[in-house]
Amino acid sequence: MKKMSRTEQTMFFADYERSRGNYIADVDGNVMLDVYQQIASIPIGYNHPALLAMTDDPYFKTMAVNRHALGFMPHSNHMNTLDDTLLRVKPKGLDNVQMAMCGSCAVETAMKCVFIRYRSMQRGSTEPTEEEMATTLEGKTPGCPNLCIIGFTKGFHGRTIGCLTVTHSKEIHKVDIPSFPWPVARWPELKYPLHQYVQENEEEEARCLEILYNTIKATNEAGVHAAGVILEPIQAEGGDNYASPAFFRGVQKIAHEFNAAFMVDEVQTGGGSTGKMWAHEHWDLPTAPDTVSFAKKMLVGGYYFKDEYLSPHPYRIQNTWMGDPMRVYLLKAVLDTIEKDNLLGRVVEAGDVLDVALQDMEAEFPDVVHSNRGIGTFRAITFHNQDARNMTMMACRNMGLNCGPCGDMAIRFRPALIYTPDHVPITMNIFRAALVAVRDSMRVEATA
Amino acid sequence: MKKMSRTEQTMFFADYERSRGNYIADVDGNVMLDVYQQIASIPIGYNHPALLAMTDDPYFKTMAVNRHALGFMPHSNHMNTLDDTLLRVKPKGLDNVQMAMCGSCAVETAMKCVFIRYRSMQRGSTEPTEEEMATTLEGKTPGCPNLCIIGFTKGFHGRTIGCLTVTHSKEIHKVDIPSFPWPVARWPELKYPLHQYVQENEEEEARCLEILYNTIKATNEAGVHAAGVILEPIQAEGGDNYASPAFFRGVQKIAHEFNAAFMVDEVQTGGGSTGKMWAHEHWDLPTAPDTVSFAKKMLVGGYYFKDEYLSPHPYRIQNTWMGDPMRVYLLKAVLDTIEKDNLLGRVVEAGDVLDVALQDMEAEFPDVVHSNRGIGTFRAITFHNQDARNMTMMACRNMGLNCGPCGDMAIRFRPALIYTPDHVPITMNIFRAALVAVRDSMRVEATA
Repeated sequence: MKKMSRTEQTMFFADYERSRGNYIADVDGNVMLDVYQQIASIPIGYNHPALLAMTDDPYFKTMAVNRHALGFMPHSNHMNTLDDTLLRVKPKGLDNVQMAMCGSCAVETAMKCVFIRYRSMQRGSTEPTEEEMATTLEGKTPGCPNLCIIGFTKGFHGRTIGCLTVTHSKEIHKVDIPSFPWPVARWPELKYPLHQYVQENEEEEARCLEILYNTIKATNEAGVHAAGVILEPIQAEGGDNYASPAFFRGVQKIAHEFNAAFMVDEVQTGGGSTGKMWAHEHWDLPTAPDTVSFAKKMLVGGYYFKDEYLSPHPYRIQNTWMGDPMRVYLLKAVLDTIEKDNLLGRVVEAGDVLDVALQDMEAEFPDVVHSNRGIGTFRAITFHNQDARNMTMMACRNMGLNCGPCGDMAIRFRPALIYTPDHVPITMNIFRAALVAVRDSMRVEATA
Repeated sequence: MKKMSRTEQTMFFADYERSRGNYIADVDGNVMLDVYQQIASIPIGYNHPALLAMTDDPYFKTMAVNRHALGFMPHSNHMNTLDDTLLRVKPKGLDNVQMAMCGSCAVETAMKCVFIRYRSMQRGSTEPTEEEMATTLEGKTPGCPNLCIIGFTKGFHGRTIGCLTVTHSKEIHKVDIPSFPWPVARWPELKYPLHQYVQENEEEEARCLEILYNTIKATNEAGVHAAGVILEPIQAEGGDNYASPAFFRGVQKIAHEFNAAFMVDEVQTGGGSTGKMWAHEHWDLPTAPDTVSFAKKMLVGGYYFKDEYLSPHPYRIQNTWMGDPMRVYLLKAVLDTIEKDNLLGRVVEAGDVLDVALQDMEAEFPDVVHSNRGIGTFRAITFHNQDARNMTMMACRNMGLNCGPCGDMAIRFRPALIYTPDHVPITMNIFRAALVAVRDSMRVEATA
């Protein structure tokens, strides 16, 4: 029987006062180079001076101690803050944004937005019918309609119950929790390195696009219409699984053929670590995604959406807190720093150096690791078995490198945007030493 | 056709720098006595000195700029913070707490906790079977089981998709969003004042308890077992609908007869405004609720739960942020202030004075308002029609009193815990003037 993985629990107690930049300190006095950065959620490193300076700002303090109902009584400065932060880095073609408290709420609200727009399209009106209003409070159709969102195998979109339905990455996330019976599309299982398997991977992607088409067609014919298709640019929790720009363009095309929304979940990929603010900017899409959800490095959750997804009834997607005005204000310092220090350019440089270094590891330890892959500093490498992966992570930590697991067999690199090419040798000295130790222990085991 | 209510949208832009204590300022220079307090979410008023002082605390600043993965790498001080805050005011019999980002996530995670415990009980093991693990990733039974949570008519539990399923307060919250087909129990429709309708209300509650029993029995027999029953101590969004302590004890007894969890949602009622930290403490329950969810005045979301609801697999209810260590640290200043200034005692005093004042309004304006009701300063009064309610709210605002709507026809009072008996006459002078104006305009209309 497949046991539930127990690797992802409390790792250690951190000393955040002594943590600085790329380095995390723990309570025992250890300092580690951190290439995991709180599951990719620290944008410019620990205790960045630009962020610390914000905490003396009177507006920051006011927002911290007066947590208000943002949708009802915003601060007069709130629109300016949005202009300076979330709207300043809005993806091309997406002029609207709504905040949420976390990544799961970002996806939940994006899905609601997509459902509302789909029903409006179906009935040819934004106003629900009398029958819909009459059936809604009991949770029955047509008021609460039979619609679905199509997710992909190995996808991860958060852990609230709605999000869990489109999440298919690990059993431990979903088991024992009820799920909507929404169909699942197939994510291409590509071979790495991508440039060596161009034809096989193209065939695999074509196969998966065909499955997607048939999946939507079948569910629509069964009366559970697909209002949207949701995916990550890189399936992060599911194991850093890639697909090509052509695949994403293909998914968008199919979704739009069925009038379904093309929903991109950038909670982990957004914020700069692929070398662009949004990973979907690598795809050369003919038109923007319909929704783009975010959290983590953006410091607040939320989603961007196209004009045609704007509900005429503002209260339909609302709640008390609606995201944190204090945290989004901090984002200004993050974006200023990214610009001033050209951090996206640095990510590309550091990513290239890290890529070459991980290729060297593949070459030196072919029995231990394979499938180095990534864009920018958003990288992963896979182990031949889970024990080796877990042992390597622990050995790294003991030698001063904090990295994270990814899927069942991989280690992921998610350094902050301030990680430089100079950090790569420090990373690799420890990573290589860990691989040596793990290889040696595997050999001892094999000959025992 | 019933139109969607549009009363609850952006009301005004606030000047939070100039807001103080019970008074909110707007950008036009107006200052209003605020008895709504951001939908009941400001515990000790605007810009309380004890909270502002915390913003100079180095630990506060560290938590603000280093938003970490709390479940994986907590700060060494985090357990102390929990002891000083959430665990310090834990309801009797509930020794465990888990944080979440908001009220919806609090309810989502409480529901997950309840589902996991129910399945463990059903199969006699905390470990899922091979078949369950094999079916989970596709979202199919038995891995994703056919279980439900029973909510009540008019109940409100948040607006993520799982929460929406147990929410039945307003059409605008739910329409066009898919819902699990979970059964709904009937909330008693009591007559006010409660002491005048003791027998009728007892009969109504007995009827609703019988419906609850039959609802659970029927869904269990249909194979969609009820893992829990969720309710609010006072149905706040649904219109401040009350039930008696005996009713709540009856619900708990029925839930436990079916091995279902008794889940109390204290997102709006918790935090002191009923004169106790938790509204369910008014019920004299024979044993604690199985889960108690909170947010709003507690500054963070989360839920308390009994020992037998603790999952043996900590990663099953987890995510990246898992609540905000900075906000929960601020809660210490809130709880210190509640103790030092005996705010719960003050709430009882102010509530009694407010109650009498609202009774006077009922007597003076019987054609306009009725059904004054409440516990502590958690109070509401109902209007004979929605227009009169909305006009009164607007008139109050124009004269310097900010109050909020509640259900279709009521106005709710949700002052901060620092509201005193001396604020009642200020409140009532304006409220009465608004009622006079509304009554006069109704008379003009009637004779026109």
